[in-house]
Amino acid sequence: MLINKNLSTPLYIQLYNNIKDMIEKKEIKEGEKLPSIRNLAKKLEVNNITIVNAYKLLEQEGYIYSVKGSGTYVRSPNYNLNVSYMEDENMELMTGGILPISKDSINLATVSPTPEMFPIAQFKQSLIEVLDRDKGSAFLYPEITGYEPFKESICNFLSKNYNINVPKDQILVISGGQQGIDIITKALISPGDTVLVENPTYSGAIAAFQSRGAKIIGIPMKKDGMDLEILNRYIQRYSPKFIYMMTNYQSPTTYSYSEDKKRELINLSKKYNIYIIEDDFLTDLNYDENIKLPLKSIDHTDNVIYIKSFSKIFMPGIRMGFMTVPEKLFKDIIKAKHTTDVSSSGFLQRAFDLFLRKGYWKKHIDTVKKVYKNKYNTMIQELDKLKKYDISFVKPNGGLSIWVKLPENIDCVELYNECKENNVAIVPGKIFFINDSIYSNYIRLSFGAVSNEEIVEGIRIIEKNIKKLYKSEDNKYLPFV
Amino acid sequence: MLINKNLSTPLYIQLYNNIKDMIEKKEIKEGEKLPSIRNLAKKLEVNNITIVNAYKLLEQEGYIYSVKGSGTYVRSPNYNLNVSYMEDENMELMTGGILPISKDSINLATVSPTPEMFPIAQFKQSLIEVLDRDKGSAFLYPEITGYEPFKESICNFLSKNYNINVPKDQILVISGGQQGIDIITKALISPGDTVLVENPTYSGAIAAFQSRGAKIIGIPMKKDGMDLEILNRYIQRYSPKFIYMMTNYQSPTTYSYSEDKKRELINLSKKYNIYIIEDDFLTDLNYDENIKLPLKSIDHTDNVIYIKSFSKIFMPGIRMGFMTVPEKLFKDIIKAKHTTDVSSSGFLQRAFDLFLRKGYWKKHIDTVKKVYKNKYNTMIQELDKLKKYDISFVKPNGGLSIWVKLPENIDCVELYNECKENNVAIVPGKIFFINDSIYSNYIRLSFGAVSNEEIVEGIRIIEKNIKKLYKSEDNKYLPFV
Repeated sequence: MLINKNLSTPLYIQLYNNIKDMIEKKEIKEGEKLPSIRNLAKKLEVNNITIVNAYKLLEQEGYIYSVKGSGTYVRSPNYNLNVSYMEDENMELMTGGILPISKDSINLATVSPTPEMFPIAQFKQSLIEVLDRDKGSAFLYPEITGYEPFKESICNFLSKNYNINVPKDQILVISGGQQGIDIITKALISPGDTVLVENPTYSGAIAAFQSRGAKIIGIPMKKDGMDLEILNRYIQRYSPKFIYMMTNYQSPTTYSYSEDKKRELINLSKKYNIYIIEDDFLTDLNYDENIKLPLKSIDHTDNVIYIKSFSKIFMPGIRMGFMTVPEKLFKDIIKAKHTTDVSSSGFLQRAFDLFLRKGYWKKHIDTVKKVYKNKYNTMIQELDKLKKYDISFVKPNGGLSIWVKLPENIDCVELYNECKENNVAIVPGKIFFINDSIYSNYIRLSFGAVSNEEIVEGIRIIEKNIKKLYKSEDNKYLPFV
Repeated sequence: MLINKNLSTPLYIQLYNNIKDMIEKKEIKEGEKLPSIRNLAKKLEVNNITIVNAYKLLEQEGYIYSVKGSGTYVRSPNYNLNVSYMEDENMELMTGGILPISKDSINLATVSPTPEMFPIAQFKQSLIEVLDRDKGSAFLYPEITGYEPFKESICNFLSKNYNINVPKDQILVISGGQQGIDIITKALISPGDTVLVENPTYSGAIAAFQSRGAKIIGIPMKKDGMDLEILNRYIQRYSPKFIYMMTNYQSPTTYSYSEDKKRELINLSKKYNIYIIEDDFLTDLNYDENIKLPLKSIDHTDNVIYIKSFSKIFMPGIRMGFMTVPEKLFKDIIKAKHTTDVSSSGFLQRAFDLFLRKGYWKKHIDTVKKVYKNKYNTMIQELDKLKKYDISFVKPNGGLSIWVKLPENIDCVELYNECKENNVAIVPGKIFFINDSIYSNYIRLSFGAVSNEEIVEGIRIIEKNIKKLYKSEDNKYLPFV
């Protein structure tokens, strides 16, 4: 009996729960085909939409997957994570364009800044000043947690700019944001533990969680943040070790959390005593007057672990960032940091410290914000012209990317391949989804590493290929001919 | 029936095997006390020495542990790893003295060099040259595997100085030796996998292996390298994922592998198709004409993964090193590097590359070798005077430490504490052993960070405390009164 119409639980939830149980108990096996929507609806005497909703939920959680024109099949929760994308020739995607994309390409794939944006003169000055001031000491092992004056500068900066107030001894300097994720995973995750993530999310985080054998479950992203109803349910169901999220200009969706949702997240974290990993690399880049703050700024629970990367706004080659460490996790996290790389370069910490103290950092953010805002406006303007093709997007008013929804019949990987042929690099949205099969019509376009002219030209080429892919389906979806 | 006198297998091996079986099958439980040596010998009608040898083997493998004056008890293989030492106030030990040891102390604990040894002038010149030459590009994300010209310089250096010939694309730049260990562990170890290590060994490696849930088994160190007979047996018995070792001036024993043992290791690695992790940070520091080469120099199997740290001879604060990656592991290891920290600082790689190309590195090694050789001779001279107290040590003619065996009744942790009171930092040997309870009378004394005067003064204080600890046992072991 898959459903009971006398219960108050919605039918699709009952159906979802019962099928899930059967999969978990292996009564339905991996690879087995589920009944078609129509057949099952008929059999159970319910509306098609009930089956659709149940299957959708199952798919979101990775229990099943659907193959176009063939049907719906069972898989194990971690079976087909998007990480598979990273293993071969598409590795460049996972890195957000770190791996060399052909030099002639218009690179709308990377969120990394370009060298002419780097504050080389000031940083060189800081480096030389450190060498002259500290001499050999600059190259000693720093404290595992980081160079003390640097941690102090970080605290001052956090307090002044993000309204985050944490004591110096809760700061851990790390070699970039990815290391923060890796260290937390080491400290908290044993094989089989569950982690909740926004869906879609950053694939580098998924790879780190998966490397420790975590079960990864996605929470759908809405325009004002995660679906908290589903989050609440999943916390109770899965007792996750932590929730991984990006508060402002989330990657790849570019969505930011509303104040309400932020407060509610903190409440949930307190209620269930669950850690939240807040990965922040774009908060500073707002292009309107609406200054956004990190979740950490309203955290009174000490459950939010705030990770800050300097790669995206400062310079990626510096490999530097920091995180806040809850008091009760301090020992475990420091141990994990030590087994990972002992400590981050003391020399670069000292130089960055001077850079912060001289106020160069704040000035640098103001400079890049102006440049990026200009490119952002160009990209929005060009994308607006594409709306006639049924594409849509939210205007984030910040960050480095636009998350573009394509017409349903255009597959993002096909578009990616076509654009690549034409020397335009974009990121197919699929690689960000925990369960990639249901979301095949998103792409991420970034504007940080290209000129206004390249944005115009790149989007013109994307338009050409959207048209072409429409045509390949016998014009039947072509709304504009 | 614990033994059968009609079999050709030595009795102590039979006894060892049978007790081990009983422990593994939980017929004898964790914490249970084993019969005393005398009682068991009587019961089995064998010599005491048979029981002693069997218990010794069991203890070496971590199946049992003995408590002085109480008896011998069962434990599970990973129960009491020395890692427990690292978790509290003794954390400074695990770091080889990275954490601040009181400034007035004579630091015979650290193997890190001191700032006045660092080639700051030349490195500053390299840094500035890179900034002027590459400008912003110096701070781009480098390739995950490392900055290409740097990898080229590394290959040249390896070929010229260590007779190691690997192609450039098998080099991976890492953020220090510890990261190399961490990455390999990530790529190769799943919970429950076995790793063989020299016993004693580097505790930072143990921590990394343990963090992935590895079962760690120690192979006793002899003066010319691991006991290969035991190694051979354990490879067959445990099918380990890899062997972790230090070929020259092993830490902490200072022993170096003989040419015969090196060849035999390569043969074993080939025969059983097993990886060897060679952790090298001291090969360059020979103080006699006997130039030692890494194991990798005779590796024709591509099974040896060679990790080189620059921390100990160059500057620890730079956090830089490299490893060679076997072709068949390339994809897995690159993926692990990416989830760990994406890539190592491109800026520092470029500077270090210049430093190598200008020949500064080789010159620097020659300089420090002279300085260290002088300190080495002082320490040997002073320690020779202590031989009247039943202490002994091997003269390594290289490296940065002496591994000192104390009289059996002196506990290294007690001596450590006494010396600490007198402002002398030493490392109690216990922290390096997989099963610490049987080896309590070793200390490691390092001379890299102290002056000749401090060496003399430090050893005078150690002598005073050895005398004191002797006395505390009612003079009964005091050979010199």
